[in-house]
Amino acid sequence: MEIISTIKRIERIAKIRLEMTHLNLDALIIPRFDAHMGEYISEYDARLHWATGFSGSAGACVITADKAVMFVDGRYTVQVQKECSPDIFEYRHLHDEFLDKWLSAEFVGGRVGLDPMFFSVDWYEKINLSLAKKPLGGQLSELVCISYAPIDALWLDRPTEPMSLAEAYPTQLAGRKVEDKISDITSILKANNVDYLVETQQDNIAWLLNIRGSDIKFNPFINSFLILHKNGDIDWFVNQQQIGNDLDFGSKNNVRICKKDQLISEVERLSGSSKIAMLDEKFSPSAVKLAANGHSKIQNNPITLLKAEKNTTELSGFRDCHIKDGVAWFRFGNWLVDQIQNNPDKKDEITEIEAQEKIQYFREQQKSFVYDSFNPISAAGSNGAMCHYKASKSSNLNLFNHNSFLLDSGAHYENGTTDATRSYVFGDVSKKYRQAYTSVLVGFIELARLKFPKGTQGHQIDGFARARLWQDGMDYDHGTGHGVGHFLSVHEFPQRIGKQINEVDLKAGMVLSIEPGFYEAGEFGIRIENLFEVVSMDNGFLGFRSLTMAPISMKPVDLDELTFSQKEWLNSYHLAVQNTLLPLIMSDEKEELLRQTMAI
Amino acid sequence: MEIISTIKRIERIAKIRLEMTHLNLDALIIPRFDAHMGEYISEYDARLHWATGFSGSAGACVITADKAVMFVDGRYTVQVQKECSPDIFEYRHLHDEFLDKWLSAEFVGGRVGLDPMFFSVDWYEKINLSLAKKPLGGQLSELVCISYAPIDALWLDRPTEPMSLAEAYPTQLAGRKVEDKISDITSILKANNVDYLVETQQDNIAWLLNIRGSDIKFNPFINSFLILHKNGDIDWFVNQQQIGNDLDFGSKNNVRICKKDQLISEVERLSGSSKIAMLDEKFSPSAVKLAANGHSKIQNNPITLLKAEKNTTELSGFRDCHIKDGVAWFRFGNWLVDQIQNNPDKKDEITEIEAQEKIQYFREQQKSFVYDSFNPISAAGSNGAMCHYKASKSSNLNLFNHNSFLLDSGAHYENGTTDATRSYVFGDVSKKYRQAYTSVLVGFIELARLKFPKGTQGHQIDGFARARLWQDGMDYDHGTGHGVGHFLSVHEFPQRIGKQINEVDLKAGMVLSIEPGFYEAGEFGIRIENLFEVVSMDNGFLGFRSLTMAPISMKPVDLDELTFSQKEWLNSYHLAVQNTLLPLIMSDEKEELLRQTMAI
Repeated sequence: MEIISTIKRIERIAKIRLEMTHLNLDALIIPRFDAHMGEYISEYDARLHWATGFSGSAGACVITADKAVMFVDGRYTVQVQKECSPDIFEYRHLHDEFLDKWLSAEFVGGRVGLDPMFFSVDWYEKINLSLAKKPLGGQLSELVCISYAPIDALWLDRPTEPMSLAEAYPTQLAGRKVEDKISDITSILKANNVDYLVETQQDNIAWLLNIRGSDIKFNPFINSFLILHKNGDIDWFVNQQQIGNDLDFGSKNNVRICKKDQLISEVERLSGSSKIAMLDEKFSPSAVKLAANGHSKIQNNPITLLKAEKNTTELSGFRDCHIKDGVAWFRFGNWLVDQIQNNPDKKDEITEIEAQEKIQYFREQQKSFVYDSFNPISAAGSNGAMCHYKASKSSNLNLFNHNSFLLDSGAHYENGTTDATRSYVFGDVSKKYRQAYTSVLVGFIELARLKFPKGTQGHQIDGFARARLWQDGMDYDHGTGHGVGHFLSVHEFPQRIGKQINEVDLKAGMVLSIEPGFYEAGEFGIRIENLFEVVSMDNGFLGFRSLTMAPISMKPVDLDELTFSQKEWLNSYHLAVQNTLLPLIMSDEKEELLRQTMAI
Repeated sequence: MEIISTIKRIERIAKIRLEMTHLNLDALIIPRFDAHMGEYISEYDARLHWATGFSGSAGACVITADKAVMFVDGRYTVQVQKECSPDIFEYRHLHDEFLDKWLSAEFVGGRVGLDPMFFSVDWYEKINLSLAKKPLGGQLSELVCISYAPIDALWLDRPTEPMSLAEAYPTQLAGRKVEDKISDITSILKANNVDYLVETQQDNIAWLLNIRGSDIKFNPFINSFLILHKNGDIDWFVNQQQIGNDLDFGSKNNVRICKKDQLISEVERLSGSSKIAMLDEKFSPSAVKLAANGHSKIQNNPITLLKAEKNTTELSGFRDCHIKDGVAWFRFGNWLVDQIQNNPDKKDEITEIEAQEKIQYFREQQKSFVYDSFNPISAAGSNGAMCHYKASKSSNLNLFNHNSFLLDSGAHYENGTTDATRSYVFGDVSKKYRQAYTSVLVGFIELARLKFPKGTQGHQIDGFARARLWQDGMDYDHGTGHGVGHFLSVHEFPQRIGKQINEVDLKAGMVLSIEPGFYEAGEFGIRIENLFEVVSMDNGFLGFRSLTMAPISMKPVDLDELTFSQKEWLNSYHLAVQNTLLPLIMSDEKEELLRQTMAI
């Protein structure tokens, strides 16, 4: 990513301020979001980074005549100060003091500009409400919808728009034909008395149309928009050159190709004939709601929910790619052991970057591997205590010299997506590390083996992964589990396990991570993560079945702290790993697999 | 309670309909609430029961020209059909299809009357919104605020208004002077930029003014209203004859006595001078919000929250009265044992009603006992499977003939309130009962021994009381824990442990029940309940300390199913019970206490 001097940054902000005067704005809000409101964006859409230097995955900047205020969440409070000079920027907490609070408390009235294509309905309405009702210093503020085009025109070396090909994703991998998916969704639209759904999330479009692409790193889809009419007809707002030749949407529905920049005018046209749009509060751009001009209904997106409940083909793809991924994880673990035992001379050279390349190397040997599903976190010693660490040349630590190592890494395969974390210790295990590792493992097992009734939601079971840590006054400051897409987003909505309220019932077929951890700042980080599918059990109850098939390090475990049931779970898991991987590895690897999966 | 024939009921509804035509109403809503929106009401306010015969603690009836529809929740779906004849009434589920849904879906437009004094802001606004926007059959409906006076005039044998004396509750029991409580609350009012608080909950008024009374059975307070101004002045809307001579509100604040029916006109007067009222969405009558005419702020009631965090005096009162209550529980248990072992001839005569009278007898021997804190649930055999069972002459089962027995009972003492449940088996323990009892006990212990971080809320820890039941496909269809008032309401807001979201942080000093159960319809009911105080632990963590001091039956426990830690908790609990009660009982009781609290 581009790094520029403070002087150049000041010049850039000055140019933006000049443009603001042309636009007659007293404040300009630049969000990190693109029009799809996802976690990942392309370089083409990295407007916030270009303007401010901030490279985090969530945030916004408010620029006024004399201030530039960065709003970031707890993950980025340190990073923002490194990337955005305090000579230029002030900092605020995105959740503790959202834009609306700041605007009503610290901004003296005037015209506040934003491009509604890059603000969700939710964000836009919060900001609009606060400006509408809170005049400060007597002067009323006004929210002004602008296009970012004049700002983007200042971005001289802007990367080109991504133009990857949307290719057919075969039904034998997707498990359901496009026409059947369309009919599933349109019956929900009819039941909800809406005329059409405006779909702007790339993974939802990829799922609905059975296509995959690669506009954004780690994300196998393309940037487009779509309108699904209740009769099953589709308007697809997509760059013509991105449409692959092999696409097949079935014969039942008409797919009309439209220019990408005509989504808004089409919604305006439809609302002109009083057609009602279904929109999603958190993911639909507010520009779409404004265009619908009152003819819209805010509702949970039915594609998001249907996509979350994986069909049997998707599930068997998930299981298969996790076995391949398990072989790679096992080989990676072996390689680590080998470096210690057999390469005493070389072990000083093993760094975080070499480690993350190594697991990728083992994955590349696996059939149908595509690419990583996210930026791996390969973190030795104290780097492991930073939850969103990314190894760079300057930060790159040696694994063995720092004794502990955490690897959070996953990949896309043609038939599914993986994401797992393992934590390792090489030399002596400190008392503190052993206690924390054991507690993290106990929490992981307690949630993994939980059986719970239908209707249970993520926030109701999150505590099971934490209770053992709590017992010793420990905890972790992140969620316990996220949904995972099927060769789509590695962080997929709507279900989630965490302290935060998530009002989505867990259902059979959903795929989730379970990933408790513990982080001792300046010393080490521990996290154990598997992916699980939610499975039906007797009496209408649900449980978790592990997809991830990789041995869990036992060296740091205090076995006396595990109950009989916990040991039983662990033994049965390791036996499954052993049985699954044994036929797939070479004979000289087998002894090590048996050792790593030995019953305790 | 009055039971009348269907013919008489039809006549009564006909009279109500006639009155509706005088009032020019197409529908009339009669709620179960009085103006205080609590769980208990006086006979004087039992308007819904008078009109419909329904005696449950929550519900409403909508009467139209040709329909009478009862809305009740899951607890009362059976009871409502017994009490309200299907010849007259239809039934709806209060939560699945709230009044607003029915009115918009099934009611053809017209004037819908209700008295806003008996509808919370929350209920009123839901109903109003649905009528305002959902014309059915083209005809718009309209919500009409009426007084129930003309309806009440039909109630010829209406009981008189309760007129118990409000007596001073001494500071040495309350722990804090009225003037200090007032100053705590007024500083919150000022910080929230409101001019006054309208308090309509009787327990909040009793807490604030350090008074107790007895207008409603089981509830030691009186029915009045109060306005607390931000300068500390109070307008108390109370029947003059209910004011005791010994009240002392301190010298700092003026307490003006007002007529009870002048609350609304006073709020109108204050809003006329643009004073802002603080109201509570769920507990303030909508009449108050209407009177405030836009000059109001909906906020969590600061008295409710402050009252929930018991002070040290209240906590020591709680501890003390639970020791007295523990002696009564222990003696009750002894009496049961004695009936089996030593009175084989008499044991056929021991019934639910005799049992509930017996524990009251043992309580009455305790100093500072006042009266029961709720209707006891004394339920043998299959009656135990009905969560809200109340023994009557016709339902009254023999304990020993039905082998199992559940007693949920509690009392007010001058220095606190108790509520506990114990379950007993007399003869052989069936496999099913043993399994369920053991799982309920394990859940009870798991939650009781949980340590959790500050900021934890009830819905995040509810699952710990259920997980062992879940493991065998079992569960219970009620909450796990409720707040308890200090010689006030036995069910006190705002904190709660349950599946339902409760966005109130648990805090040190709060008192809660933990009461998992299991109910096998037609066979038996099991529940184990103690009250606990939330206590501070190291590292900013919290935990539970048992207030209830009564042995837990060990006979039905499958000891092999308990982990070492669970046994440890149980032994330490029983040791505390033993040490606490031993000095307080007679020498011939000691052997039995030692037996019941023996380490396992």
